[in-house]
Amino acid sequence: MDDITVLAISGSLRTTSYNTALARAARKQAPPGVRVSLYNGLREIPPFDQDQEERLPAPVTDLRRRIGEADALLLCTPEYNHSYPGVLKNAIDWASRPPGRSVLNGKLIAIAGASPGFLGTARAQVALRAVFVGLNAEVVTSPEVAVFRAQERFDQAGNLTDETSIALLQQLLTELSTRARR
Amino acid sequence: MDDITVLAISGSLRTTSYNTALARAARKQAPPGVRVSLYNGLREIPPFDQDQEERLPAPVTDLRRRIGEADALLLCTPEYNHSYPGVLKNAIDWASRPPGRSVLNGKLIAIAGASPGFLGTARAQVALRAVFVGLNAEVVTSPEVAVFRAQERFDQAGNLTDETSIALLQQLLTELSTRARR
Amino acid sequence: MDDITVLAISGSLRTTSYNTALARAARKQAPPGVRVSLYNGLREIPPFDQDQEERLPAPVTDLRRRIGEADALLLCTPEYNHSYPGVLKNAIDWASRPPGRSVLNGKLIAIAGASPGFLGTARAQVALRAVFVGLNAEVVTSPEVAVFRAQERFDQAGNLTDETSIALLQQLLTELSTRARR
Amino acid sequence: MDDITVLAISGSLRTTSYNTALARAARKQAPPGVRVSLYNGLREIPPFDQDQEERLPAPVTDLRRRIGEADALLLCTPEYNHSYPGVLKNAIDWASRPPGRSVLNGKLIAIAGASPGFLGTARAQVALRAVFVGLNAEVVTSPEVAVFRAQERFDQAGNLTDETSIALLQQLLTELSTRARR
Repeated sequence: MDDITVLAISGSLRTTSYNTALARAARKQAPPGVRVSLYNGLREIPPFDQDQEERLPAPVTDLRRRIGEADALLLCTPEYNHSYPGVLKNAIDWASRPPGRSVLNGKLIAIAGASPGFLGTARAQVALRAVFVGLNAEVVTSPEVAVFRAQERFDQAGNLTDETSIALLQQLLTELSTRARR
Repeated sequence: MDDITVLAISGSLRTTSYNTALARAARKQAPPGVRVSLYNGLREIPPFDQDQEERLPAPVTDLRRRIGEADALLLCTPEYNHSYPGVLKNAIDWASRPPGRSVLNGKLIAIAGASPGFLGTARAQVALRAVFVGLNAEVVTSPEVAVFRAQERFDQAGNLTDETSIALLQQLLTELSTRARR
Repeated sequence: MDDITVLAISGSLRTTSYNTALARAARKQAPPGVRVSLYNGLREIPPFDQDQEERLPAPVTDLRRRIGEADALLLCTPEYNHSYPGVLKNAIDWASRPPGRSVLNGKLIAIAGASPGFLGTARAQVALRAVFVGLNAEVVTSPEVAVFRAQERFDQAGNLTDETSIALLQQLLTELSTRARR
Repeated sequence: MDDITVLAISGSLRTTSYNTALARAARKQAPPGVRVSLYNGLREIPPFDQDQEERLPAPVTDLRRRIGEADALLLCTPEYNHSYPGVLKNAIDWASRPPGRSVLNGKLIAIAGASPGFLGTARAQVALRAVFVGLNAEVVTSPEVAVFRAQERFDQAGNLTDETSIALLQQLLTELSTRARR
């Protein structure tokens, strides 16, 4: 049985981002049968412009191809101003358009996040989840992976060391795998 | 008494965008004592990157200066995937950072939107409003300007011709003016 | 193959409620293989009180039994103050508690709504959907049934007469049926 | 100068509710010039029924009178299922109706909450805030009072003992006072 493939997208461009570290942790800690690859192209995605839908910029074509090839997505979102980052939503806007050509249609999606505070991006996750309602995506709801007080759960090199968080992340990937194999 | 100044930002880059047309209508139909200028630089704003906060990209500096100089903002938001566009949130993310240097602190903000459907961006407006809760901004709640079935309310040249919509837009600007003069 | 059973709950107590009429329409127009029954006990549900969880009031026990017996729920929500009615949420609060004894666990749920305005309860539906995220329920996302300008779509006797709305309601019930049979 | 009056409403009916304890703490710790009274009638409010708007049930009349007499409201909300309790929303539904007779019109409102977990009702507060957008209420946004890990911040008798929480609660009441005196 082939591995299922998960494309992990971090919504942060910061070099030492906890969310990028979380995406890397997903790759490293993936349970058997799940292969996680990282999407690193967010910085190159231009601002969404509906006038360019018929002649997509190359980075958008690449993003859409990667999403299309993956069995599932893992979105690692920081919380900026009580919501997800604009850059992450911008990528989703490109991926979802135009109607009938959305690469998110029917896609299996998991949401996770990490933050230094106590909320662990809970509000950003609520907001991000609502984005997919009209897109006919299947967004996993459980377990909730909200790595709060992230500075205590990653080491200096950005490795996720907190066992509870690792276990939850693995459960989330397993849930993606279970659903993908149906 | 000086005019109050409102910076109108459309969240759409599309040439014939209803929301850009709505921003232009606000400029054209502004009530006495209110001067509306348009922000056209959204396309140049790079993706938010916290690592660049100490050496802001020039377009971001310009955006922040324009926001800082205005008495109020008028945000004209399309609805993409039940929410605001990533490009609009990206600009807000830059404007809000870092803590203590947010140009949105204490800022007076009005939200409006236009769309071809019946919702008139109602869900995007809900989502956008929530973004400002932690930013100590003053977001006007009334009147609600949700120009639904926009194709019936703008003419071919993009002029807002619907009298109800014009009146609501003017009331919204008047509300900004009243509050700004307090 | 047995019919699947759907319990329809209207969030409005008003006698001539559009949402109660929508629930009745679901019963009347149910596609083959789907049997819809109406829950009429919302008025008897007392205010949720965690202290009573171990000795549930009789109307709550009845509500929980009905939910437990149904294969799926159809929630017909009005929009009050940009959200769902308190009475509907109160019923959900009772149904969801205590942890480990939620009758919503794994439950298949569809959301619909009707209103006289143009929004058709779109904001209430967004809010209601978010309630189920932590409850391990499976909330159907498509089709969206938001019967706007309801006064044009129901006749004086409260029958849903609009063919588009009937078709959408049937699709929603069919979606519940498809998933329930998996 | 007269004291400003704040009506505190706890969204929980549980005897040892942290949110009722928070409302009591607001009364006890109110800064000079602010008088907080507690609303204890939530249990008696019947389910909202639009057909009764013209002949309001007595408990609703009492609630509306108390709200009308207060300069401001302090809503202490638990988080049930990622949102506010149905019983709290039900009271708001009664208070807001019918159009033109809402006792929430122009009302100054603060939102706070307490919970045993780490979120401190953050999601419930987001949801509750959105309820007031169309009601022409003035909802204070700062400071945020989210008493997380409440079991560490109240003593056995239900007194708020955490100094940071007390200070934030006092700041919130002071903010109400400042605005009420404008």
